[in-house]
Amino acid sequence: MTVTDVSTGRSARPASDTLQLATIGAGRIGSNHAEIVARHVPGATLAAISDPVPGAAERLATALDVPLATTDVAEVLDRADIDGVLITAPARAHTDLVVAAATAGKHVFVEKPMAVTLEDADLAIAAAEEAGIVLQVGFNRRFAPGFAAARAAIDERKVGAPQLLRSLTRDPGPFTADPSRIPQWTIFLETLIHDFDTVCWLNPGATPVRVHATADALVRPDAKADGHLDTAVVTIRFDNGAIATTEASFSALYGYDVRAEVFGSEGMVTAGNGRRTDMTYYGADGIQADTARRDTELLRAAYTAELRAFTDAICNQSPVPVTGHDARRALSIALAAIRSIKTASAVDIAEVTK
Amino acid sequence: MTVTDVSTGRSARPASDTLQLATIGAGRIGSNHAEIVARHVPGATLAAISDPVPGAAERLATALDVPLATTDVAEVLDRADIDGVLITAPARAHTDLVVAAATAGKHVFVEKPMAVTLEDADLAIAAAEEAGIVLQVGFNRRFAPGFAAARAAIDERKVGAPQLLRSLTRDPGPFTADPSRIPQWTIFLETLIHDFDTVCWLNPGATPVRVHATADALVRPDAKADGHLDTAVVTIRFDNGAIATTEASFSALYGYDVRAEVFGSEGMVTAGNGRRTDMTYYGADGIQADTARRDTELLRAAYTAELRAFTDAICNQSPVPVTGHDARRALSIALAAIRSIKTASAVDIAEVTK
Amino acid sequence: MTVTDVSTGRSARPASDTLQLATIGAGRIGSNHAEIVARHVPGATLAAISDPVPGAAERLATALDVPLATTDVAEVLDRADIDGVLITAPARAHTDLVVAAATAGKHVFVEKPMAVTLEDADLAIAAAEEAGIVLQVGFNRRFAPGFAAARAAIDERKVGAPQLLRSLTRDPGPFTADPSRIPQWTIFLETLIHDFDTVCWLNPGATPVRVHATADALVRPDAKADGHLDTAVVTIRFDNGAIATTEASFSALYGYDVRAEVFGSEGMVTAGNGRRTDMTYYGADGIQADTARRDTELLRAAYTAELRAFTDAICNQSPVPVTGHDARRALSIALAAIRSIKTASAVDIAEVTK
Amino acid sequence: MTVTDVSTGRSARPASDTLQLATIGAGRIGSNHAEIVARHVPGATLAAISDPVPGAAERLATALDVPLATTDVAEVLDRADIDGVLITAPARAHTDLVVAAATAGKHVFVEKPMAVTLEDADLAIAAAEEAGIVLQVGFNRRFAPGFAAARAAIDERKVGAPQLLRSLTRDPGPFTADPSRIPQWTIFLETLIHDFDTVCWLNPGATPVRVHATADALVRPDAKADGHLDTAVVTIRFDNGAIATTEASFSALYGYDVRAEVFGSEGMVTAGNGRRTDMTYYGADGIQADTARRDTELLRAAYTAELRAFTDAICNQSPVPVTGHDARRALSIALAAIRSIKTASAVDIAEVTK
Repeated sequence: MTVTDVSTGRSARPASDTLQLATIGAGRIGSNHAEIVARHVPGATLAAISDPVPGAAERLATALDVPLATTDVAEVLDRADIDGVLITAPARAHTDLVVAAATAGKHVFVEKPMAVTLEDADLAIAAAEEAGIVLQVGFNRRFAPGFAAARAAIDERKVGAPQLLRSLTRDPGPFTADPSRIPQWTIFLETLIHDFDTVCWLNPGATPVRVHATADALVRPDAKADGHLDTAVVTIRFDNGAIATTEASFSALYGYDVRAEVFGSEGMVTAGNGRRTDMTYYGADGIQADTARRDTELLRAAYTAELRAFTDAICNQSPVPVTGHDARRALSIALAAIRSIKTASAVDIAEVTK
Repeated sequence: MTVTDVSTGRSARPASDTLQLATIGAGRIGSNHAEIVARHVPGATLAAISDPVPGAAERLATALDVPLATTDVAEVLDRADIDGVLITAPARAHTDLVVAAATAGKHVFVEKPMAVTLEDADLAIAAAEEAGIVLQVGFNRRFAPGFAAARAAIDERKVGAPQLLRSLTRDPGPFTADPSRIPQWTIFLETLIHDFDTVCWLNPGATPVRVHATADALVRPDAKADGHLDTAVVTIRFDNGAIATTEASFSALYGYDVRAEVFGSEGMVTAGNGRRTDMTYYGADGIQADTARRDTELLRAAYTAELRAFTDAICNQSPVPVTGHDARRALSIALAAIRSIKTASAVDIAEVTK
Repeated sequence: MTVTDVSTGRSARPASDTLQLATIGAGRIGSNHAEIVARHVPGATLAAISDPVPGAAERLATALDVPLATTDVAEVLDRADIDGVLITAPARAHTDLVVAAATAGKHVFVEKPMAVTLEDADLAIAAAEEAGIVLQVGFNRRFAPGFAAARAAIDERKVGAPQLLRSLTRDPGPFTADPSRIPQWTIFLETLIHDFDTVCWLNPGATPVRVHATADALVRPDAKADGHLDTAVVTIRFDNGAIATTEASFSALYGYDVRAEVFGSEGMVTAGNGRRTDMTYYGADGIQADTARRDTELLRAAYTAELRAFTDAICNQSPVPVTGHDARRALSIALAAIRSIKTASAVDIAEVTK
Repeated sequence: MTVTDVSTGRSARPASDTLQLATIGAGRIGSNHAEIVARHVPGATLAAISDPVPGAAERLATALDVPLATTDVAEVLDRADIDGVLITAPARAHTDLVVAAATAGKHVFVEKPMAVTLEDADLAIAAAEEAGIVLQVGFNRRFAPGFAAARAAIDERKVGAPQLLRSLTRDPGPFTADPSRIPQWTIFLETLIHDFDTVCWLNPGATPVRVHATADALVRPDAKADGHLDTAVVTIRFDNGAIATTEASFSALYGYDVRAEVFGSEGMVTAGNGRRTDMTYYGADGIQADTARRDTELLRAAYTAELRAFTDAICNQSPVPVTGHDARRALSIALAAIRSIKTASAVDIAEVTK
């Protein structure tokens, strides 16, 4: 069903063919991506779902009319007619799944973080390159319309040389999770990793060189003794002089808040406003507007666009918009931030990458 | 493929089945709707496209991988496996197509205006009722997220009793069409018809009773002698006392502008802001933001939602969100507005409906 | 203290002199203007206050350190050292006071409406011209920063030829006044008169020619039988083809709402947003912002600017920014609107002015 | 003209009296403050102006009708009828002038920074306390309506416990000053000092404990060799766990940008939007709005309010809204930031204050 395009090492396929994709992981974000692929990605079909939790894959497959549901990921990877997989399993399992899928010759879309150590990141990148597959990472901000427009303005030189950048991620509150079940450093490895990628992507051509992090358990102070951190600020210095601040919280009572700002020699762009619709209400308490409460709502267009881009990269050899190297770069900032917390000092990224 | 549900007179179909739809009219808006049905409406398949212009249906069918393309609408209506049709032909052909499709037992989504005379509107409504089909009209504002949220706020009594309403439609400029090819009264029958429906829908339970219209050819003054009107304001009085102003222009240089405002005893809601994304640029000329330039961009979510609602009304017997009676009501306002222009005076709607 | 400038007929005064002004009327708006003149108008001193209500002038004079307080307006007009007066008495007394003050050689700033009949308007204008005094009318929107910037954009041709205009005034709610004490037609003569001036001023060079009005008692339906109207929409047609809609309500629960919009061949300007400050709050109920609840807060900058302009017109012979002729024009629209209500039809302004 | 209030150590004065103030320093900001006191502060009179530059005080005094102009500050301080002074001289002269004025028994409003060493700050505070005078520092953000509303929301517990704060100051571009004439560390001591105060003031009751700074010469890279810094980010940790980021640039091409954001356990407040008016223009290039280009325009209301508060503190013994201790606290952050730059590491504020 696919033929190798020798010149690029990637597979080419006739346009009239439908791409057969599978989802590995049927949790919250896996279900979101499965629904998008099943219904909103032209040229792609969701052919299989796997999840080790008994019943999880079946339920989702029934809802989406997907022919194959299994608890055994190998059953998916062994299928010759599956062209690619979306890895939406827990973060710690990502790298092994990327390597297994690549080795099986499947194209891979992997949710962030692709890896939580640089060694694993290198393994994933090497496996993908060796297999000649498309490897795309789920940094969804890049596909949000406002963020994409911000980057376009930067590319058009409207901002000039970036000097000050800001990116933030605040999960919606109230925070109801059990902190003891959240892996340590999650705020850096799974939340701020988005912002680390965003500031790199919005400062094109520059390399992050130094990091200073501050963090605390302000949402759940009682969990601090266990090493749980839910509030963090990371300052990142780039080799072109630009200074970025990134910021995360696990509980924004007003909703899901994802914003960016790039200030440069010629102007500024901002993206993100947290609004759910363009409706505004004026009442006895003043002016009111709704906020988005779920990432799957706030970032719906972004999730759809990134999965279409993945399909496009496979079918039309268009450039992969978020590579394994991008994931590795964001990870290096996260690791430097963790070291900054441990040492209570600023850290050169070279310290963690050498 | 369908079975009659005796209790409602509408057809019921098993959930696992895919609805087979056809598009009648492969022009600009027909192509837009065809693409949405083909790719973004779960449970529906685009099975056929017809357009009398040689090649038009074929080109679109090829792009969307649709099996049947024809210049003969009868070929579509004769197909037993087609469940419903989208009528996106020129406005003057709408009623005949609605009647023909209903008579053939097809569910009908018809673009506005459903009819341009009340007699035709009655014919269409009667044909649909006799055939027991779903008849839905393309008043898309109702499905735009901001407008839908405004209506929800009204339903929650946050606005209180509506007193002053506003709805406007401004097509994006510059105006490049040939005015002589635009049917007379188009600004009322095809443009403001949206706003007439919007203000009725945002004033639930009230009936429009009296109309005053002012109009001119300000965009193309040279075409005025031919009866071409491109700028209009229509004031509508409701039986609950509320006063609505509706406004249209054929050339908004800044983009596509669709907005509404409802002011009542307890507050106000507004919907629509004309922005393309949430990106804002700050440069030497101040603050700047992009506007939407095409309805298919500005109203993308609305077009998708209305076509999903159509599918849902057919498959799940959910209420038809925009009925033939809604279309007739908006048309009665348009006809009163036209009489108001002709007589240079305010007109009771009863004058045109009796 | 003043010398006549023969060439203009207006008085000139040395720059080092302080202008001596008096306030006639110590009610809500009179107190507001008195405070501004006493404290925030360079080159002017508040020298006297008169109000027929015993004690009213005294209380205000004490608070503002003004030497003369009286219940007898003649005492003010007889004073040779008073250069000008601010007339902030009830509307029906305006014309007589303008004529008396002009006859006494005092410059006049008169709150809107300058007159409620065209005959009175002509008397006021003639008295001012004969006396060679400055006569300025209190159309404050012209001095609000956003409105002034809108007019500047129009003057810079950024909007092109105005085609559709909107101006609205909504008094803050809840409405607590006794409707029986509000003179009939107040919504046209005292509220919408602002908007009538605004749309004329924002459509420079054009003349209003025809009016259609709709009005009702929606805030206090019980008072309708007494002829009380609290909600109105007036459509105005100009000789350059432009169509304006003006709108008023006596009870906007969310605050004081004063806005304008001008749409033209090259773009659109809007002014007014109802916000009190640039603070925004994001909480569990979404996004919130404060609104202004009083005109003296919302229009503070405008009130100050218009009184400075009045001083400037007297001291420096700068052009009078709002003339008696402007007041007469706005009044002619109000009178046509009243006739439109009475006759339930559109009315040519020539019918009321001939 | 003043009598000592023994209980507070501050002078009391009869309300009917006018406070006699003098301006020391007739440069840009001195002229701004002088105009405000001369014309817009009820109860205060500008009685004298001094500036060592020949002619500077005279020119300003003539424009504002001020009786005394001198190049010798002693002439002002020796005048028994002067109640207070505004110190708007260059920053390095502030402390000496505060001490001299306090010793002369004058109340003091001093522009930021009050001092550039902690020793000087202590001298100024001690001199003021010994003299029993009012000592107020020019942290104007506190008086900007949006910032004041933000603080009010915090005081009303709408934000909950502050967790993440942001304050930024960007001077308007293009940058045209000669970098060699700007004292080293100005970005911390004169620009960010505002933001240091803002984040302390918006985090009531908390104490800043640790600082990390990053800075560069990005606006004028050629001046970096001389130690000129024009772009900086400072992260501040508070003892209640909150983390603040403050940010400055010497050249925002789009105008003067002063904003703040406070995120807490219950919500978020933001203040500042950079707009000049509420006018919005929609044209062929999209949506546009004007920005403020001068602090004296953007912060006009704040400057007026702080000088009224100063007068009020003197005349009515109302609390001094910005004290010498507030200035010392902001200075301690600035000094820690400078040390952070020098050592390329995070710095405990205790290191610079012990």
